Amino acid sequence: MQKKTLEASIKIPIRFNEVDSMGFVWHGNYAQYLEEARENFGKKYSLNYLEILSKGYYIPLVDLSIKYRKPIIYGMEIEVKAKYIFSDAAKIIFDYEIKNINGGELLTTARTVQVFLNKMYELEIVNPEFYTRWKEQFFV
Amino acid sequence: MQKKTLEASIKIPIRFNEVDSMGFVWHGNYAQYLEEARENFGKKYSLNYLEILSKGYYIPLVDLSIKYRKPIIYGMEIEVKAKYIFSDAAKIIFDYEIKNINGGELLTTARTVQVFLNKMYELEIVNPEFYTRWKEQFFV
Amino acid sequence: MQKKTLEASIKIPIRFNEVDSMGFVWHGNYAQYLEEARENFGKKYSLNYLEILSKGYYIPLVDLSIKYRKPIIYGMEIEVKAKYIFSDAAKIIFDYEIKNINGGELLTTARTVQVFLNKMYELEIVNPEFYTRWKEQFFV
Amino acid sequence: MQKKTLEASIKIPIRFNEVDSMGFVWHGNYAQYLEEARENFGKKYSLNYLEILSKGYYIPLVDLSIKYRKPIIYGMEIEVKAKYIFSDAAKIIFDYEIKNINGGELLTTARTVQVFLNKMYELEIVNPEFYTRWKEQFFV
Repeated sequence: MQKKTLEASIKIPIRFNEVDSMGFVWHGNYAQYLEEARENFGKKYSLNYLEILSKGYYIPLVDLSIKYRKPIIYGMEIEVKAKYIFSDAAKIIFDYEIKNINGGELLTTARTVQVFLNKMYELEIVNPEFYTRWKEQFFV
Repeated sequence: MQKKTLEASIKIPIRFNEVDSMGFVWHGNYAQYLEEARENFGKKYSLNYLEILSKGYYIPLVDLSIKYRKPIIYGMEIEVKAKYIFSDAAKIIFDYEIKNINGGELLTTARTVQVFLNKMYELEIVNPEFYTRWKEQFFV
Repeated sequence: MQKKTLEASIKIPIRFNEVDSMGFVWHGNYAQYLEEARENFGKKYSLNYLEILSKGYYIPLVDLSIKYRKPIIYGMEIEVKAKYIFSDAAKIIFDYEIKNINGGELLTTARTVQVFLNKMYELEIVNPEFYTRWKEQFFV
Repeated sequence: MQKKTLEASIKIPIRFNEVDSMGFVWHGNYAQYLEEARENFGKKYSLNYLEILSKGYYIPLVDLSIKYRKPIIYGMEIEVKAKYIFSDAAKIIFDYEIKNINGGELLTTARTVQVFLNKMYELEIVNPEFYTRWKEQFFV
C-alpha cells in the first residue's frame, strides 16, 4: 500500500547531436533521459545503481514503454520526473513524466521495470534483504 | 482483416561500444536495432522513411514498448524481425522479435506505433491516400 | 592576424549512460561535448549551424583531433571552452579545452576544422561572402 | 623496426540512426567504427580489450585524430582497416582506413594512441611484460 509519494525531478539539457533534421529529439535518445532521472532519484533516496551493485545485485531493465505525446525540440528546457511505484514484488518500477519547463506542458510519459540478478546472473524472485528494508522506510 | 503476413528479418552485428561492463547490450541501444529492422522492412515493401517523406509525411513514433527477456551479449549474432500489424487507422504498427541466430532463442519482443504528420507537423487522422493504396496491395 | 580572442564556454552535465564500467566517459562521447561547445559559441557570435545552413552552406568536419589528458569521471562538472582560431582560408577552426569546474584542472584539449559545402555538396574554396563579413567584424 | 605488417579489416554496416538529414554519417559516430576495427584486430592477433584487462591493464585512448575526406552515406558498404604501428614505447598505436567497398574509394583516415594503466589507474611507462612478449612475436 503506497503511503508516500517518492519522486525526484531533474532538468536535462538537450544536446545538439540528439536532434534530427527537424530539430526533434530522436525517439531512441529518451532512454538516456529516463536513466538520468532514475539515477537522480537513486541519489536522493539511496537506491542508485552503484549502491545496489555494492549489495551484490544487478538491476537490468525488463520492461520499457514510452508514450511520445509532443516532440522535444532543440532549445527546449525539459524536466524529467521519476516517480517510484510501490510493488510487493522484487521489482523496481518507475513512472516518468517529461515536461517543458517553460509552460509546463507534458511531453512524454514512460514506465520502466527492473529486476534483481545476483552475481551469478540469476533472477532473484524474493526481495533482497536490503531492498525490503529500503521499502519499509517509506511504505509500511 | 489481416490476410497476409508481412515481415522482414535482418541480421544485426553488435558493436563493442554498445555493451556495458558485463558485456550486455545497454537497453537504450535496442531502439537502433528496431529502427534498422523497420527500415529493412520498408525497403522490402516500399514503405521506408525516405519514400514516405517524399509523399509529404513525417512518421514519428508515438509509442515504443520493449520486453527484455534475455540479455544480448557481445559476440552474439542476432536477427531482428519486423512484422507489420494491420490497422484501419492512420498508423504504422510493427511487432518485433530479436533472436539469437545461434540456437534461435527469443531474446526480446517489442512494438512500435507511428503516426503521420503533414509538412506543417499536423497529425493526419485519416489515412493518407498513398498509404491506403499501399495497404490495399496486401489486405483487402 | 588575430586581434581579438573569440571564445565561449558552456557547462555540460555528464550523462550516466556516457560512462563505462570504471565510471569514465567513453572517448567516443567527447565529440558531442565539442559540438555542444561549438553550437554555444555559434549562438553567442551568430555562427551556428542553422544560420549557416540558411545562407546555403553545410559545414562538415574534415578534421578532428582530441588529446585525452585526464579522464572525465561520472559526477564531475565540466566546462567546455571553444576558441575560434582565425584563418584566411574558407575554414572554421576551433580549439577546445575541457576543464573540471571543481578545481579547474585541464582534462582534454581538442581541435576541429570545418569547411563549406554549397547546396550541391561542392567544396567552397573561396570564403563565402557572409563568412568574410563575419570575420571582418572581429579581425581586420 | 617494423618487419611485418599487422592489419585486420572488417565490414561495418551503417545504421539508419547514425546518419543526419543529408544521409551522411555524423562525424561523432566514427569513433565506434574505429573501436570495432580495433576489437576485430584484437581478436585476430590476441590483443583485444578483455584479454588485456585480464592481464591487469586498462588501455584508455590518449589521442584520437580523424580526417574526413569523403562522407559516408547511408546505404554504403564500408570496410574499416586497422593497421598496427610499431613503437618501442608502452603504447598501442593504430592507423585506420575506411573505404567504400563498392569501388574502393578511401573515405577516411584516422589514428589512435592508447596507453596502459594498472589496476590502480597509474600510467605504466615501461612496457608490460605480456605486451613485450606480444611484440616480440612479430617484430624482432
